[in-house]
Amino acid sequence: MPATLIDGKALASQIKAEIAQEVNQLTSEGYRAPHLAAILVGHDGGSETYVRNKVLACEACGFDSTLIRYEDDVTEAELLQRIHQLNQDDSIDGFIVQLPLPRHINEQRVIEAVDPRKDVDGFHPINVGRMAIGLPAFISATPLGILTLLRRYNIATKGKKCVVMGRSNIVGKPMVQLMLQKEGADSTVTCVHSRTQNIAEECRSADILIAALGQPGFVTADMVKPGAVVIDVGTTRVPDASRKNGYRLSGDVDFEAVSEVASAITPVPGGVGPMTICMLMQNTLAAAKKEIYKD
Amino acid sequence: MPATLIDGKALASQIKAEIAQEVNQLTSEGYRAPHLAAILVGHDGGSETYVRNKVLACEACGFDSTLIRYEDDVTEAELLQRIHQLNQDDSIDGFIVQLPLPRHINEQRVIEAVDPRKDVDGFHPINVGRMAIGLPAFISATPLGILTLLRRYNIATKGKKCVVMGRSNIVGKPMVQLMLQKEGADSTVTCVHSRTQNIAEECRSADILIAALGQPGFVTADMVKPGAVVIDVGTTRVPDASRKNGYRLSGDVDFEAVSEVASAITPVPGGVGPMTICMLMQNTLAAAKKEIYKD
Repeated sequence: MPATLIDGKALASQIKAEIAQEVNQLTSEGYRAPHLAAILVGHDGGSETYVRNKVLACEACGFDSTLIRYEDDVTEAELLQRIHQLNQDDSIDGFIVQLPLPRHINEQRVIEAVDPRKDVDGFHPINVGRMAIGLPAFISATPLGILTLLRRYNIATKGKKCVVMGRSNIVGKPMVQLMLQKEGADSTVTCVHSRTQNIAEECRSADILIAALGQPGFVTADMVKPGAVVIDVGTTRVPDASRKNGYRLSGDVDFEAVSEVASAITPVPGGVGPMTICMLMQNTLAAAKKEIYKD
Repeated sequence: MPATLIDGKALASQIKAEIAQEVNQLTSEGYRAPHLAAILVGHDGGSETYVRNKVLACEACGFDSTLIRYEDDVTEAELLQRIHQLNQDDSIDGFIVQLPLPRHINEQRVIEAVDPRKDVDGFHPINVGRMAIGLPAFISATPLGILTLLRRYNIATKGKKCVVMGRSNIVGKPMVQLMLQKEGADSTVTCVHSRTQNIAEECRSADILIAALGQPGFVTADMVKPGAVVIDVGTTRVPDASRKNGYRLSGDVDFEAVSEVASAITPVPGGVGPMTICMLMQNTLAAAKKEIYKD
């Protein structure tokens, strides 16, 4: 029996519609709409696409959005000054600085300049730390999107074995914490990575396998326990002459073969990706409602 | 062949002697000695002992120490005011507020009132978050002590399988992160806890087993892979009529039986415990030298 397709695109649409409905309610009560700002430096193709999709998602949710553009040669001081203004601006509920930034700018300094109360990307160390301790926090969008997929698809997680592949700061590490916490998925969690011996064996122990390595097709059918749930976070651009733009997105999972073994699986594209932007919207709504930080 | 005894007491003495030598060097160069302050509220027996041992460790390291006592009925406002003064006091390099606090005081508010640059316990969310991301941070003493034990005993960790038992904020969770990080132990890490199915099987997969459940004797010999390294974080007070004080400290590990199977093991007491206070001293020295935060 082929696996259930976990349709992130459809779920993201549904959640955005739920958010739009709530925004509609808020504005009908006299509140202003949530307002997300995005800073985009330079003209990287990937970043342009991500930011455009974020602006479109704001429109779908009934949010206001502001796009602030800088050329590649913007100084760190200019950028920090603008961030300071956004921190002070009461009409902005949350904002993001699209990464990566040009090399002459210290990314960590930029991340730490964002007021944690407006840090809807959840990258500020104080949000990372609060999440780790189990306090209310903005949680970065990809791991939050995966947890939401699991919950909305009623996938049992409590006491289940979860294997997270990868240990990046924005996916692997926070994913480990969310899957581990009692207030999160309450699973037994293993994290495997480039240094892991017997990686296939570790993966085969998983009831829930979350692949975030960025290595196209790494997860083959023999690495998946029959009946496991497989979440594919990989989105590597692979050259493809048959496509108009010259590439296709490839996940970390050999989808065709693994979907014969798994009980449920996310596709790439259309799985985790759409959920990520949707969670940014959810965080922005939470910022507007002051759900995380009360003052 | 019985296991190597990992002697935390001896190693802690050695590290304290190294710290004392460095302090001696610093003061001979005209710098003042590092200065740790501790706030103790009430007269809980355990807290009294911990704080006394911290003051003694300061003396062994050549640090100045200040003990600030409050009765159980101190208000939260008084405590926060005192913390604010310590934050401002340039003669204090680091300070701790001994936990637990009386119920009428919000512990999290107290923890977050401490200037992260003086937070030598590493409990402030910003230190927790910085550690998670791999930035310089004060790391809480017990997990840092365990990592130091492993390193000083030349126990290989890179690519090894580590199983952490327990997911508390002060031991289990930060331990998972330290064992996982490339800059840390670079191990494959599994975290098991009260909800875990097949806990014995998970534990048997460990090259390094770190038990922090607080359940006396929970880890039996059949749960340990022959040749594994076993670190026992448990220090539960078990009634013992044969002792003058009426109790003995019991670890999470059945020491007698497991030491026949493991290649190396920490005793309780004399293993992780002494390292914890020693790491608090190391953090205080780092605070005095402004090694973590430069300004």
